[in-house]
Amino acid sequence: MSATRYTYLGPEGTFTEAALRTLPEAATRELVPMVSVPAALDAVRSGEAAAALVPIENSVEGGVTATLDELATGEPLMIYREVLLPIAFALLVRPGTKLTDIKTVTGHPVAQPQVRNWLRAHLPDALWESAASNADGARLVQEGRFDAAFAGEFAAATYGLEALVTDIHDAENAETRFVLVGRPARPAAPTGADKTSVVIWLGDDHPGALLELLQEFAVRGVNLMLIQSRPTGAGIGNYCFAVDAEGHISDRRVGEALMGLKRISPKVRFLGSYPRAGVAPSEVRALRPGTTDAAFVSASDWLARAQDGRA
Amino acid sequence: MSATRYTYLGPEGTFTEAALRTLPEAATRELVPMVSVPAALDAVRSGEAAAALVPIENSVEGGVTATLDELATGEPLMIYREVLLPIAFALLVRPGTKLTDIKTVTGHPVAQPQVRNWLRAHLPDALWESAASNADGARLVQEGRFDAAFAGEFAAATYGLEALVTDIHDAENAETRFVLVGRPARPAAPTGADKTSVVIWLGDDHPGALLELLQEFAVRGVNLMLIQSRPTGAGIGNYCFAVDAEGHISDRRVGEALMGLKRISPKVRFLGSYPRAGVAPSEVRALRPGTTDAAFVSASDWLARAQDGRA
Amino acid sequence: MSATRYTYLGPEGTFTEAALRTLPEAATRELVPMVSVPAALDAVRSGEAAAALVPIENSVEGGVTATLDELATGEPLMIYREVLLPIAFALLVRPGTKLTDIKTVTGHPVAQPQVRNWLRAHLPDALWESAASNADGARLVQEGRFDAAFAGEFAAATYGLEALVTDIHDAENAETRFVLVGRPARPAAPTGADKTSVVIWLGDDHPGALLELLQEFAVRGVNLMLIQSRPTGAGIGNYCFAVDAEGHISDRRVGEALMGLKRISPKVRFLGSYPRAGVAPSEVRALRPGTTDAAFVSASDWLARAQDGRA
Amino acid sequence: MSATRYTYLGPEGTFTEAALRTLPEAATRELVPMVSVPAALDAVRSGEAAAALVPIENSVEGGVTATLDELATGEPLMIYREVLLPIAFALLVRPGTKLTDIKTVTGHPVAQPQVRNWLRAHLPDALWESAASNADGARLVQEGRFDAAFAGEFAAATYGLEALVTDIHDAENAETRFVLVGRPARPAAPTGADKTSVVIWLGDDHPGALLELLQEFAVRGVNLMLIQSRPTGAGIGNYCFAVDAEGHISDRRVGEALMGLKRISPKVRFLGSYPRAGVAPSEVRALRPGTTDAAFVSASDWLARAQDGRA
Repeated sequence: MSATRYTYLGPEGTFTEAALRTLPEAATRELVPMVSVPAALDAVRSGEAAAALVPIENSVEGGVTATLDELATGEPLMIYREVLLPIAFALLVRPGTKLTDIKTVTGHPVAQPQVRNWLRAHLPDALWESAASNADGARLVQEGRFDAAFAGEFAAATYGLEALVTDIHDAENAETRFVLVGRPARPAAPTGADKTSVVIWLGDDHPGALLELLQEFAVRGVNLMLIQSRPTGAGIGNYCFAVDAEGHISDRRVGEALMGLKRISPKVRFLGSYPRAGVAPSEVRALRPGTTDAAFVSASDWLARAQDGRA
Repeated sequence: MSATRYTYLGPEGTFTEAALRTLPEAATRELVPMVSVPAALDAVRSGEAAAALVPIENSVEGGVTATLDELATGEPLMIYREVLLPIAFALLVRPGTKLTDIKTVTGHPVAQPQVRNWLRAHLPDALWESAASNADGARLVQEGRFDAAFAGEFAAATYGLEALVTDIHDAENAETRFVLVGRPARPAAPTGADKTSVVIWLGDDHPGALLELLQEFAVRGVNLMLIQSRPTGAGIGNYCFAVDAEGHISDRRVGEALMGLKRISPKVRFLGSYPRAGVAPSEVRALRPGTTDAAFVSASDWLARAQDGRA
Repeated sequence: MSATRYTYLGPEGTFTEAALRTLPEAATRELVPMVSVPAALDAVRSGEAAAALVPIENSVEGGVTATLDELATGEPLMIYREVLLPIAFALLVRPGTKLTDIKTVTGHPVAQPQVRNWLRAHLPDALWESAASNADGARLVQEGRFDAAFAGEFAAATYGLEALVTDIHDAENAETRFVLVGRPARPAAPTGADKTSVVIWLGDDHPGALLELLQEFAVRGVNLMLIQSRPTGAGIGNYCFAVDAEGHISDRRVGEALMGLKRISPKVRFLGSYPRAGVAPSEVRALRPGTTDAAFVSASDWLARAQDGRA
Repeated sequence: MSATRYTYLGPEGTFTEAALRTLPEAATRELVPMVSVPAALDAVRSGEAAAALVPIENSVEGGVTATLDELATGEPLMIYREVLLPIAFALLVRPGTKLTDIKTVTGHPVAQPQVRNWLRAHLPDALWESAASNADGARLVQEGRFDAAFAGEFAAATYGLEALVTDIHDAENAETRFVLVGRPARPAAPTGADKTSVVIWLGDDHPGALLELLQEFAVRGVNLMLIQSRPTGAGIGNYCFAVDAEGHISDRRVGEALMGLKRISPKVRFLGSYPRAGVAPSEVRALRPGTTDAAFVSASDWLARAQDGRA
C-alpha cells in the first residue's frame, strides 16, 4: 500500500491528469496513469494507491457511466474531493497536415459528441473512429493510423504533434467534473459548501418509487444537484439513481433524509460528503426555514420534553 | 388538589357521565359535574380535579369546538384516555304527554342535528330551543318550560319524566368520542394500538402549508385519523388543525413526524398519546414497510456507520 | 315561488339581517326571517324564496356547521354571493340594570366563545344559558328570563333594552362570513377575484386520501382559502371537507382541479363560484407560472398538434 | 425520398441489424447500414430514408446517449415502434486462435461493460480497445489488428471468423431496446399496451423542479417506465429528462399530464406513442381508479353540468 500514490484515468496527457494536477497535494504524490476507470479504482481498492482521480460527469455527454457503475457496485469506495475542469479540445495532427488532408479522426468516445457540430461544419466527410482515450488517439495519429485526434492541447508536445485548431467545443461552458476517490473513511468536516453523493436503488416495479425518494429529500428541504439514472443490470426498467444533494452527511436535514431513503429503498450506498468545487459557503443557497441544524436540535429538544410531559 | 376527583361536563344524567362511568377507575373517584367544558377543564388546570371527561367529537355533529379550543389554548393539558359511546336519544316528557301534545322541544345544541330528521318526520311543527345540556333540557321539561326534551334514556328517572320514544338517532352508528384530560405528564407506555393528538398552527397566508403538514406525516408512513380545522381567532382564513395520528409519540415514525411539524409550523401543541378505544393491537393497520421502529433504528445505525466511513 | 323574497336566519335584529341589508338588492326584496338555517334554506329549495342569507363561517367559532351540513346534503343549492361582517357584541339589559346586578346571561351558542374572555373578566360568576339566537336572547331578557343578553347593538331598540356595554369581542378582527344561497344555476361570470366552494367526500379508510385531494389543487396551482372537515354521519373517522378555492369554475386550472377531485373522490358537490367579498381583482395573489388560462390554452393547442404529429 | 428505405446503425452484422430484421416490414424494405446514430437519423430527417432503427437503451449500459441526444435536439423525429433484443456476445477470433493467444480484444464501447466481468475472469491481461461498432471490431480482427472481438455470433460468417466462446453476458437478462424512428406524423392508434416518450427540460436552478414534473404524472395516475437524465449542454447541473410513460397520448390521463408538463417546463418534446414490445394489453398494469378515459369523460361531463348549474 502506498499513501503517496494516486492513480488516474490515463494515459498521460488526458484531461484527467490536468484535473489531478490542479489539486495542491498532487505535487507531493506519485501520479500513476491507468488504462481504465475500473483499473484506477481497483488500485485503490487493493491498497496499491491511496486515491484515484476519475471523471464522473461531463456537461455535454452526461454521467461517465464507467465511473458511476464502479462506484455503485463492488467493494465500497468514497468520494473526498471534486474538481471541475473546463473542456476545450485541440485538433492534433502530424506537423504539416492541413485541414483538407484529414480523412480520419479519432478521440475518446466521450469527446465525439462534444465536437460533433464542429466536425459537421469543418470536416463533414472525415470518418470518426474511437480511441481508448484522447491521449491514445494522439498516439495513434503519431503512429499514422489516423490523420487527426481530438485531445487537450497539452498533449501535443508529448506525441510530437501540432495543434492545428484549438479551443474546440460545441457547447459553451463545457466542463467535466472529476472526483478523487479513496477507501471509505470518516468524511472531512463540513465546510459550509458541501455536497453529498449517494446511489439509491428503486424497488421493483413500484411506479411511484422515484417520487417517494425525491420526497424524502424535499420534505427535509434538501436540494438535489444531480439525478443520474443507471440500469441495475437486472433488466430493462430496473434502475438505480446516483444523486448529489446539497449539504453534508453531518447536517441534520441530510442525515434524516438519508435515513429515510435507507428505510424505503432496497439499497442505498453512501458515496461521501465533500466540499463543492468552485462554490464558497457564502454562495450557497439559503436553507428553507425549519431545516437548519438549529431547527432540528430545537425540535428534538421539544420532542424530548413532550415525551416527558413538559412540552 | 385532589387526586381522586374527576370532573365532567354535567349536569348529572348527561352522556358524558355515562361515558365516564365506563372507565373502571370511575368507581373509586369522586365524580363532579361542571356547567361547561371550560369549567370542567379549569378545575383540572387549577388542581381541584385530577382529570376531566369531556366530549371531543361526535360522528354527526363533528368536533366539539369548545373542547378543541380549550385544549388548543390556555394552560396546556393532555389527553390520557378516550371513550367511545354510542349515542341514541330518548324523547323525555312529563308523564301522560302524547306526541300530539308536543309544541316545544329542547336539548343540547349538539343533539339537534342528530335528531333533525326524526323531528321533521314526527314533530314537524314543534319549535326547537336549545338548552345548556341534554340533562338541563330534561330539567326544563320537568319545570314545564318545554313539552319534551331529547336526552339519554337514563336521565328520565332523575327528572321524573318518562321516555315517550327511545333509540332516536338520525344516523346509523352515531357515537360520541370523549377524552379524559389531565395536567401534562409523561404519556403512558405504548400499547400497540395508540393514538397521538396534536394541534398544529398554519403559517400565515401560505397556500400550500396544509399540504406540507400532511406530507410530514405521509413521508414517515403515519396515518391520520382526524383532521379538524379550527379558526385561530386571528381572522377569517387563519386556521389551526387538530390532528389525531395513528401511533404513539415514542414510536420513531411519530416522533420524527412531530419534529418535522415543529420545525415548519409556527406552533405545535402536543395533546397526548393514549390507547385507542375499541381497537386491539391485532386490529391495527399494518405499518408501511420502512416505518417500524426496527427500520428506524436500523437506518440510524447505518447513518452512524456512514458518518464514520463504515457503511 | 317568489323571485323577490329572501329568507335569512332570523329573528329580526340578528347579525344575519344586518349582513343581508349590506346587499344593494336587499332594498327591493321582501326579507323574511326564519327560525333556523335549515328553515331558511328549505324555503329556497321549495321555491318560496329566491335566496337565503345564512352565516357559514365565523373567525372565532369556525364553520357554522348547520349551514355546512345543509349545503352538503339534501337538494342541491348554490352560493352566489358572500358578505363579510365585523362582529362586535353589545351587552343588552333592561333599562336600569347595572353590571353588578347581572346573574344570568344568554345569547346564541356561537356568541358564547366570542365573549368568553370578556365574561371571565367582567362577569365571572354569571351563569350562561344559550338562546336560539342572539335576538331571541334579547327577547328573553325583555321577558325577564335572563338579566342580560349578548347581541348586536342594533337589536336594543327592537326589544326595549339598553346597551350597557358595547363593542365586546374577545378577538381582534372578529368577523362572520355569510353566504347568499339560491337554487343551482349558471354561476355569474368571473370578476377576476372569485372563489369556488365545493364539498369533497373522502374515500373510506384511505390514509392518504386528504393529501391526494390537496394535490389535485396544488398541482394546478389552485390556492385554498378554507378547509373545513365535517363528519359524514357514517361514523367517527368518516369525513367530508368543505373547501374554498381561489378562482372561478370557468378558470381552466380550477376546472381541471375539480375534474381531478371528481375522478378520485366518492362524491364532490359544487357549491358555486362567486365574487370574493372585500377583495379587488388587483389584490388577488399572482398566479403561479403555467396556471393561467392562456397557459392552459397554449398547452392544449400543443397537445392537439402533438396528437397530429405537428408539435 | 424513399418510403421503402430504412437506415440502421451499421455496419452489417450488428445487433441493430438483427433487431431490425425482427420487424415484419423489414422483408420489404431496403435496409441501409449507416456509420453512426446521427447519420442514420439524418437520413430520415433529409427524406432519404423513411425510418431508422437505432438502439436507445441497454439493460447493462443504460441509455444510448447518442440516440437520446439526437432525439432531444435538432429537427424533430418521432418513435413509431420499439424492439427488445436479448444481448449475448460471442468472442470472435481468426480460425485457430486459442484463448491463451489473445492479447488484445475489441468491440463497441457499449459492449465493454457487458463483458467486463467475463474479461476479468477469462482474459485478465488482455488489452481492450474500442471499435466503432461490434461488427467493425470483427473486421479489425479479420485484418489482424486485434486478436479477438466481441460481437453477435451471427457476425462470424461475414468476417471469416469463428466464435471461440458464445453466450457471453455479464448480466442475466441483458437486453437492448431499439426504436424505429421516422419523421413526425400522427401516432398509430392505441393498442391497449402503449408507451409514450417525451423529453422534458428542467427550469434553471429550481431545486424541486423534478419532483414537480413527476407529480404531473403521478396525480393523473400515469406510471413511468424510464427516467433518463441528460445534460442539456448548458453546463453542469442543467438537465433534461427522457421519460417513458405507460399509455398513449390519446389516453386522457396521458394527454392531461403532458399538458401539465408543457405548462411548467421550459420545453417539452413529444417523441411518440407506440406499442410496447413484448407486452400484451392483458398484461398491462391495471389503471388506478379514476384515471380511465371513462372517468375523465365522466368528470368532464360533470364539470360542464356544474358550469351550467346542473351538477
